[in-house]
Amino acid sequence: MEGTSDPYGGHNGSEILPPMQAVVVEAPQPAVVHKVMAQPAQSSASKMKGKVKETFFPDDPFRSFKGQPLQKKCLMAVKYVFPVLEWVPGYSLSLFRSDLIAGLTIASVAIPQGISYAKLADMPPLTGLYSSFVPPLVYTLLGSSRDLAVGPTSITSLIMGSMLQKGVSVSPSADPTLFLQLALTSTLFAGLLQASLGILRLGFIIDFLSKATLLGFKAGAAIIVSLQELKDLLGIVHFTDEMNLVTVMASVFQHTDEWSWQTILMGACFLVLLLSARHVSMRWPEFFWISACAPLVSIIISTVLIDLFKGQNHNISTIGHLKCGLNHPSWDKLLFDPKYLGLTVKTGLVTGIISLTEGVAVGRTFASIRDYQVDGNKEMMAIGLMNIVGSCTSCYVTTGGFSRSAVNHNAGCKTAMSNVIMALTVMVTLLFLMPLFVYTPNVVLGAIIIVAVIGLIDVPAAYHLWKMDKMDFLVCLCAFIGVIFFSVQQGLAIAVGISIFRVLMQITRPRMIIQGNIKGTDIYRNVHQYEEAQRVPGFLILTVEAPINFANTNYLNERTKRWLEDESFSGNKQTELRFVIFDLSAVPAIDTSGIAFLIDLKKPTEKLGLELVLVNPTGEVMEKIQRANTTHNHFRPDCLYLTIGEAIASLSEEANMAIP
Amino acid sequence: MEGTSDPYGGHNGSEILPPMQAVVVEAPQPAVVHKVMAQPAQSSASKMKGKVKETFFPDDPFRSFKGQPLQKKCLMAVKYVFPVLEWVPGYSLSLFRSDLIAGLTIASVAIPQGISYAKLADMPPLTGLYSSFVPPLVYTLLGSSRDLAVGPTSITSLIMGSMLQKGVSVSPSADPTLFLQLALTSTLFAGLLQASLGILRLGFIIDFLSKATLLGFKAGAAIIVSLQELKDLLGIVHFTDEMNLVTVMASVFQHTDEWSWQTILMGACFLVLLLSARHVSMRWPEFFWISACAPLVSIIISTVLIDLFKGQNHNISTIGHLKCGLNHPSWDKLLFDPKYLGLTVKTGLVTGIISLTEGVAVGRTFASIRDYQVDGNKEMMAIGLMNIVGSCTSCYVTTGGFSRSAVNHNAGCKTAMSNVIMALTVMVTLLFLMPLFVYTPNVVLGAIIIVAVIGLIDVPAAYHLWKMDKMDFLVCLCAFIGVIFFSVQQGLAIAVGISIFRVLMQITRPRMIIQGNIKGTDIYRNVHQYEEAQRVPGFLILTVEAPINFANTNYLNERTKRWLEDESFSGNKQTELRFVIFDLSAVPAIDTSGIAFLIDLKKPTEKLGLELVLVNPTGEVMEKIQRANTTHNHFRPDCLYLTIGEAIASLSEEANMAIP
Repeated sequence: MEGTSDPYGGHNGSEILPPMQAVVVEAPQPAVVHKVMAQPAQSSASKMKGKVKETFFPDDPFRSFKGQPLQKKCLMAVKYVFPVLEWVPGYSLSLFRSDLIAGLTIASVAIPQGISYAKLADMPPLTGLYSSFVPPLVYTLLGSSRDLAVGPTSITSLIMGSMLQKGVSVSPSADPTLFLQLALTSTLFAGLLQASLGILRLGFIIDFLSKATLLGFKAGAAIIVSLQELKDLLGIVHFTDEMNLVTVMASVFQHTDEWSWQTILMGACFLVLLLSARHVSMRWPEFFWISACAPLVSIIISTVLIDLFKGQNHNISTIGHLKCGLNHPSWDKLLFDPKYLGLTVKTGLVTGIISLTEGVAVGRTFASIRDYQVDGNKEMMAIGLMNIVGSCTSCYVTTGGFSRSAVNHNAGCKTAMSNVIMALTVMVTLLFLMPLFVYTPNVVLGAIIIVAVIGLIDVPAAYHLWKMDKMDFLVCLCAFIGVIFFSVQQGLAIAVGISIFRVLMQITRPRMIIQGNIKGTDIYRNVHQYEEAQRVPGFLILTVEAPINFANTNYLNERTKRWLEDESFSGNKQTELRFVIFDLSAVPAIDTSGIAFLIDLKKPTEKLGLELVLVNPTGEVMEKIQRANTTHNHFRPDCLYLTIGEAIASLSEEANMAIP
Repeated sequence: MEGTSDPYGGHNGSEILPPMQAVVVEAPQPAVVHKVMAQPAQSSASKMKGKVKETFFPDDPFRSFKGQPLQKKCLMAVKYVFPVLEWVPGYSLSLFRSDLIAGLTIASVAIPQGISYAKLADMPPLTGLYSSFVPPLVYTLLGSSRDLAVGPTSITSLIMGSMLQKGVSVSPSADPTLFLQLALTSTLFAGLLQASLGILRLGFIIDFLSKATLLGFKAGAAIIVSLQELKDLLGIVHFTDEMNLVTVMASVFQHTDEWSWQTILMGACFLVLLLSARHVSMRWPEFFWISACAPLVSIIISTVLIDLFKGQNHNISTIGHLKCGLNHPSWDKLLFDPKYLGLTVKTGLVTGIISLTEGVAVGRTFASIRDYQVDGNKEMMAIGLMNIVGSCTSCYVTTGGFSRSAVNHNAGCKTAMSNVIMALTVMVTLLFLMPLFVYTPNVVLGAIIIVAVIGLIDVPAAYHLWKMDKMDFLVCLCAFIGVIFFSVQQGLAIAVGISIFRVLMQITRPRMIIQGNIKGTDIYRNVHQYEEAQRVPGFLILTVEAPINFANTNYLNERTKRWLEDESFSGNKQTELRFVIFDLSAVPAIDTSGIAFLIDLKKPTEKLGLELVLVNPTGEVMEKIQRANTTHNHFRPDCLYLTIGEAIASLSEEANMAIP
């Protein structure tokens, strides 16, 4: 609509059209007229097939299979399912060296984050480590990204915890077994959803979470997560279960008596330490490992400090005893009780979509940087299967998180083997090192989470949105405000709703422009965009830039009538206006309402004594016009032209003949 | 997508592009290059104002107010609110004569239909007559259509009855007072919704109920209504409360012992009578009054018959005693009990939207036939206020029904005065003639309803959809099947969902076409649509026909890469392909994701050693490209061209210089 917005700006209603200057159209000697053609006829079935293919297989994943012998095809199919087979045969020691370093680096991030995020999801800390052990191994087999580092993420942990807690209205500490069961079941549903989106090739569904939505959503989630960590940072014992800004702040200041200065001091020190490390790594990217190792170092230092000063006696809460051992099988814990089915399905749906969006986006980002291909639908299957397996091995929802994958990438990972190294390191930790965490203070975990989520608040990107596109910024802002003042799901729903509404509005209120001739050429352009474009006397050239369908025919009808009236009542030109040219170049599709609109358009034009012609209908539109012609001859061939220039030349000639 | 579907049709995957023939492009002597311009700069606020105006005031209703003296403006405003003032001053006796005939004719339709539809909605028969008395008077004051005849309609009656019955899970006969209260409250909410849609100028919301949806929906509703009437036609006493086909048919055949041959005989006779009258009127439109009067005549004859033969003793059920008197005030009956609030709001919403859609569509249809203007938003306010007033005067949801308005139009109505005549006739009936209905058999009411709703099943229109647009037909079919097998609301929801999904899919999977030059001209067209269009050697000319935004950038990315790869790997042409021309003529809008896509597009093209240029960005797109350029100079002015021809001429020249 912006193309036409100029005239309404200042004049509040009736537009002032650029004056019709006497432009001499250099008509070709005898008007050359090219015929408008429809596409070669095609059966409905083959058209449908083409559409289905383009909808579900835009990347044509089986292209390379064609023309191969059967044996090769089978081999390719196995490789398609297990991308690991692509790189394992050529795996070398030098690749391993790179992957080893990267794997150890991400393990040093994964261990503290695993424990912290599990606490964020109100689950036993061990679950976080379990989730960094099995899923990375599954992903290594099935995933096609070389940079993705797999594990739980802050946002999915937060959503899972809050949704389940709201759903059962029982605190996780009161019934931890039920809570764990619900989390595992939700994870199963998340995995099933993700895998089926991949298998059914419905990956485009996550495209509706635009970057602007995610930007606002992540920033909001980061703030919500940080607010939750105020509990640990201040040492508060009685804390609200709610997530929104107002309630949490109220809770923080209601319990000032519980604030513990030792905890606050320790938290502040480690926050400064971690933020400094982050700052150094951001300033000098070659020192990325400083911020990568900082969480583990913080945990070690703080644990030693607590142990030395017997901090647990000074109001500093610690993780406490954690049992050694690997993941337990947990398929017997999955809970299909109808009472909780709705809740787990819903939680699985939301966390599944969110984690899928993050995983696929991260995979695509690094694939683009390192210039290899990632197949979105295959990634979805990999992430989905990883979560299905995870739900049976005591893991909750995992995906490829951005920060972790960035560390992996910076540490020079070459293949998904770095995930295996990480998993093995986590395994060693799970088997032997758990007793060391007994004195790890919760306040340091809180500081680690806060520093991890701060990176999600991307102010420059939001500013960029503001500069580029106010509507995108609005979407981002709505997601942000929705998340911090209402809830994570509501914020997301509002932002997606606005995004889709905006797309629908572009269809419902399509841009219509008036074209003019650029002097001395056969080029016609928007008169409001090009000053040189001057209206051709006697002609009104209208262009619609959207499919014409049920959602906009009423609007187009009213808008066109208004233009025709404005033209007819604008004084002495009334006698001059003779032809209305409706340019269909930018109309990719039309439905039956649209065809009815085009047919009805003749009425107001004929009433005003004008002749209506159509220019350059695209394949589908031409096809439907032809079909409409089979019953009634609505559009004679002589009212269809290939270009505006030819239409004007031919019609002028005709008019000169008619008016002697 | 259809434009490109040809190549996938037969070849399952890799498209065969038309061979590049040696086309001699007639390059202008020295390549003339016109500069691409952005729109004149405009503040965000004024752009927003333009957009808001175009969204909510596309018809610019206050255009004529401008430049008028204040007194005239006030007068116009009063006339705007009460369109009755437009025609009353010039009202003449000859107009009145026409309106009198039309009014009496529609009254003869309204009285039997009023009683029948009220029974369909499980309400006291009197409510149907009340609803044909007050609302038409209100509409006369506020409505701008001259042909609309106002009253209850079969579909809204059906929906209201079924929704309320499901909602309270109590049969209307068990607690008729509660049922009436709920119906009145729902009517209030329907009116509030309708009026606020009009006042907030959100009328475009009803555009999402496309004609295809309504066609299937109405046909399904007609079948459901007819099935309900089997109860009266067969004389069954114990009948199911459910609405769907399967349950109703089961119920009919479970109660064969209740079938009464007298009732069936009488019903069959009157069905034949009414259908014959309908047939005569459809065959010879000048005898429209035969079918218009047939219901009243049937009622009179059948009542006399029952009275004569004491039919009520022969298993033929009759309406029974009806109290004389006009509408009672009913504002004290409105029920805002939180227990029922959700139900009444939901019922009001559904019936409000359906009746609004019908009323506005009917108004527009006849306005178009008689060539006057109907303001959609003003009509909504009129219909909404009519229902608000109705809910306080014992009326349930009313609107301008199609069949009744068609009778009004055919009977030669000139102004909304015919509604007044109808209302007065109904008033006389209510005051004095009610005792006459005591012996009116229910079976005749059933026959009247069936014949009335048969007209809603429009097979030729469905066949037209099938011929024109398979997707529209699918939408229609889904609405139909949803209504008859599930429920009225679900059928509607499914059909609207599919319609919107289709629109979204057009954005998510936009058409991308390859253009070629039409020999001997400067015209470039889709090579799959125009056989004469031949690809220009060395150039790949791609056109996207949709806004580029978050919903399709991933798709466009994959699709473009596939095209580039196909081109590069297609043998000897690899050395030849030099330039990719991305034609943006048909891209009306772009968001930040879209701009990022255009910037990222350079990567794969440069990797293949190709140069990318953009052609003819429209106003909004150009503006965003410029904004993107302010930070990084992504698009140098020399990679932007106004036309494909100029781009090719200029790039060829340049290439010739570069390659000596």
